[in-house]
Amino acid sequence: MDAGAVVPCCPPITAGELSQDDAEKMAVMFKALSDPVRLRLFSKVASHPGGEACVCDISDVGVSQPTVSHHLKKLREAGLLTSERRGTWVYYRVAPSVVAAMSAMLDLRS
Amino acid sequence: MDAGAVVPCCPPITAGELSQDDAEKMAVMFKALSDPVRLRLFSKVASHPGGEACVCDISDVGVSQPTVSHHLKKLREAGLLTSERRGTWVYYRVAPSVVAAMSAMLDLRS
Repeated sequence: MDAGAVVPCCPPITAGELSQDDAEKMAVMFKALSDPVRLRLFSKVASHPGGEACVCDISDVGVSQPTVSHHLKKLREAGLLTSERRGTWVYYRVAPSVVAAMSAMLDLRS
Repeated sequence: MDAGAVVPCCPPITAGELSQDDAEKMAVMFKALSDPVRLRLFSKVASHPGGEACVCDISDVGVSQPTVSHHLKKLREAGLLTSERRGTWVYYRVAPSVVAAMSAMLDLRS
């Protein structure tokens, strides 16, 4: 699945009941962040200088490089990261519109 | 587990790498929202008049009342809902500080 296929949704959680479609979309995104290793990897990419990171930049999360690659791929499939291959490595960066949609959905001020 | 035991955390995802402790705390919260039925129930409670709802208010999510109760309990255990028994029913409402912490963590503007 391409990250571009994920369309950010949804109204704030206080605005009304989520539709089944929107609930299914959002559940995929929340599920991608429901694992501590994936959350740490996500924060590493988000906070990396230049806003992007490759597996080559990540070595200290306590799991092997293939496992890191697997988790980054899951985050990309959920739409939270985008990726670009440059030479040997795939570089990941946060998909700002998708992450902003999750934040906005949980924003109780709105 | 009592909802009061869950302490909201964490810095914005762009601020730096999450600690293992914070990642484990946040993963529990995201996991609670990683199921479409739970997300719909959560939005139902959040958007219900008065900001609270009991199982008696919820009948049209396509699952049985015991399943609704089970999911609401999971959301409470993750700290996203608080609960209060009044008479026959347990009333649930959104735990604003916990949900705000999740939103803030994903807020890329900060």
